[in-house]
Amino acid sequence: MIAEILATGDEIRTGALVDGNSAHIAQKLEETGVQVVRHHCVGDDLNRLASVLKEIGSRSDIAVVTGGLGPTVDDLTAEAAAKAAGVELSLDRMALKSIEEFFNARKRTMNISAKKQAMQPKGARCLSNPVGTAPGFILKIDRCVFFFLPGVPHEMQRMVSDGVLPRILDYQGSGRNFCLIKTVSVFGLTESAANELLTGFEKKFPDIRLGLRAKFPEIQVKLYTDGQDRHRLETRLAVAAGWVDEKIGNSVFSENGESMESVVGTLLRREKATLAVAESCTGGLIAHMLTNVSGSSDYFLFSGVAYSNQAKEAVLGVSASTLKRFGAVHEETAKEMAEGARRLCGATYGISTSGIAGPRGGTSDKPVGTVCIGLASKQGLSAQRFIFTDYDRRMNKQIFAMTALDVLRRKLLGI
Amino acid sequence: MIAEILATGDEIRTGALVDGNSAHIAQKLEETGVQVVRHHCVGDDLNRLASVLKEIGSRSDIAVVTGGLGPTVDDLTAEAAAKAAGVELSLDRMALKSIEEFFNARKRTMNISAKKQAMQPKGARCLSNPVGTAPGFILKIDRCVFFFLPGVPHEMQRMVSDGVLPRILDYQGSGRNFCLIKTVSVFGLTESAANELLTGFEKKFPDIRLGLRAKFPEIQVKLYTDGQDRHRLETRLAVAAGWVDEKIGNSVFSENGESMESVVGTLLRREKATLAVAESCTGGLIAHMLTNVSGSSDYFLFSGVAYSNQAKEAVLGVSASTLKRFGAVHEETAKEMAEGARRLCGATYGISTSGIAGPRGGTSDKPVGTVCIGLASKQGLSAQRFIFTDYDRRMNKQIFAMTALDVLRRKLLGI
Repeated sequence: MIAEILATGDEIRTGALVDGNSAHIAQKLEETGVQVVRHHCVGDDLNRLASVLKEIGSRSDIAVVTGGLGPTVDDLTAEAAAKAAGVELSLDRMALKSIEEFFNARKRTMNISAKKQAMQPKGARCLSNPVGTAPGFILKIDRCVFFFLPGVPHEMQRMVSDGVLPRILDYQGSGRNFCLIKTVSVFGLTESAANELLTGFEKKFPDIRLGLRAKFPEIQVKLYTDGQDRHRLETRLAVAAGWVDEKIGNSVFSENGESMESVVGTLLRREKATLAVAESCTGGLIAHMLTNVSGSSDYFLFSGVAYSNQAKEAVLGVSASTLKRFGAVHEETAKEMAEGARRLCGATYGISTSGIAGPRGGTSDKPVGTVCIGLASKQGLSAQRFIFTDYDRRMNKQIFAMTALDVLRRKLLGI
Repeated sequence: MIAEILATGDEIRTGALVDGNSAHIAQKLEETGVQVVRHHCVGDDLNRLASVLKEIGSRSDIAVVTGGLGPTVDDLTAEAAAKAAGVELSLDRMALKSIEEFFNARKRTMNISAKKQAMQPKGARCLSNPVGTAPGFILKIDRCVFFFLPGVPHEMQRMVSDGVLPRILDYQGSGRNFCLIKTVSVFGLTESAANELLTGFEKKFPDIRLGLRAKFPEIQVKLYTDGQDRHRLETRLAVAAGWVDEKIGNSVFSENGESMESVVGTLLRREKATLAVAESCTGGLIAHMLTNVSGSSDYFLFSGVAYSNQAKEAVLGVSASTLKRFGAVHEETAKEMAEGARRLCGATYGISTSGIAGPRGGTSDKPVGTVCIGLASKQGLSAQRFIFTDYDRRMNKQIFAMTALDVLRRKLLGI
């Protein structure tokens, strides 16, 4: 079964909006054993929309279309679908009911423009939207079954899992193909260095496709395979991931796509340990990453984002003489910051960052991209300096934060 | 002049990677007066790549292609371009030199696989890559000029501004068309509420196209226009933005696409004021947002991310009796947090968040999505409670952080 994905709307066409929807849909379809062969995007242009729908309808089995189902005048997708299928638009009772229910449940009055969303192509089947006002629909155009969904990400995601995937599993019946992907995450190597370490993979695992991608600041090694025997595929992928792990070594931080902050959290929980953070140049990003993980309150106690020297002294207890002697960006300062945060809330571990994210503030001996990472534990204090080049402010914050978490990961693993 | 954009690679095709490159390129092309009519994505499949290149070549003036120029076996773009143009690949001396220079400048040894990147279609012109190893190239296929760029975002971006846009301006000569976009950013209204407030826009400004989009948690009102008289277009857009501003009122926080954190920063700087933050449920996100703005050290002093009650007491000086009497999520606690952070580093303002981001921790009177925002200044303390429904943990963090910054924005503006 092959599929195509179409994102609609001038916001995506003109680049005002990054299309994250197509990636989500592609991932879900691939996991369900549907091969996604192509993505498209066109703007709010009735004729162009209708013509791309016809083009896809003539060659694919399944298509998922997002956007353009809302209440405003530039929402043209239902009309384009009707045009491509050669039918009229008509008021869909089920769609109208779903819109009314949405407003009733929230004790809001349904406005007139919301009603436009119940106009769907004749012959379409309504796909209800439990979390928004615009319902979707299913329509066959030529040989292809099209799923039309709203463009609001969390509405689209809910409708993919509730409405689209169960129907695709039905279509597939028992001859289902599984496409499995395993992600091995690496931090601290370049893409080409990782690539060289993996020389010989193709020969050893001819049934698995290897792909490397830079998801800054990490490198992801992706292993793809497909077939009908799910158990066998999973075993093969596990063996291949083990091989990759062995070749790359300690720079591998997860074998299942888990984020660095989640890996560190799991290690802390296993030790029943707690963590305090002192951030200067990362500006709260370490705390933000850690607290994105649900349940992080089990181990994450505190982060002091001390941008000013005064806050470093007043909150984290860094001594004025250390700041004066070594400056804000230095191993000694980083050590005192990490220990200050740790002591402040009685945490098992303290980590800290002090550096220069840029674009200004660099000097010849401490250029933009310099960061000192401090680590404090009951066993004592340590600090390391790293220098990253070529990155902008936001990227520096990201790579500094990942480096600090990686220092803690290695400490927790004793590597 | 019309253009198409093609993103290549199995990572994007299968949804493992969100394609942010195409949005960046579309935006830059549109700003240069080139109309982007369609985006595409196909995987690492030689025949399919070549066939899409031919399809685009037959109908567009310009195309920008990203990805697949790297050193690994699944990098097939140069080969596909050669196939579509009906030429051979050959070693490009300029490309080889550019790769060698990259390695020399970083005192790294050039590995064998890097050399593959110098193989380009015969007749192509090399586009140098100052920040990465893979050079790009320009090649005419059928009637269309193709720019082939690497997929690594910061490399692609640099090559678009240095290599692609100057050449397009050359092609356009004096008959250049300007497409201008103005973004009015709104926080605190739903998309359809904003839409209704703007009824009558089309009649008043028939030369400007209006588009609304939800860029969670804000709503962006986009105004598009095009023509050859840049000055006239800018004036019209400013008038239209003024009309939008008047209709929507205080929920408009910027008229030039500026982020909330940047708007708040500008207001603080204007007052020569400083800010301290106390974060519970936002977990460092407010500090991260503020410090993404270059120069934020002028006004941002400190954020205490106090996840545990113990840290709220020890660091922010929240009284144990307040915590006991009202709980961690309460207006009184939020007030003490804001004032504690403010006093700790002598800031002009203090803001705080205390709430329940989820997925767990909600109760019947304080459900997931509840947040108390505290505000402290020399004039005294205040706090407000907000309840958001329908969002997950990450979205709650985002909308809580935006709400806190918006409370401060309104205070600074006296609205």
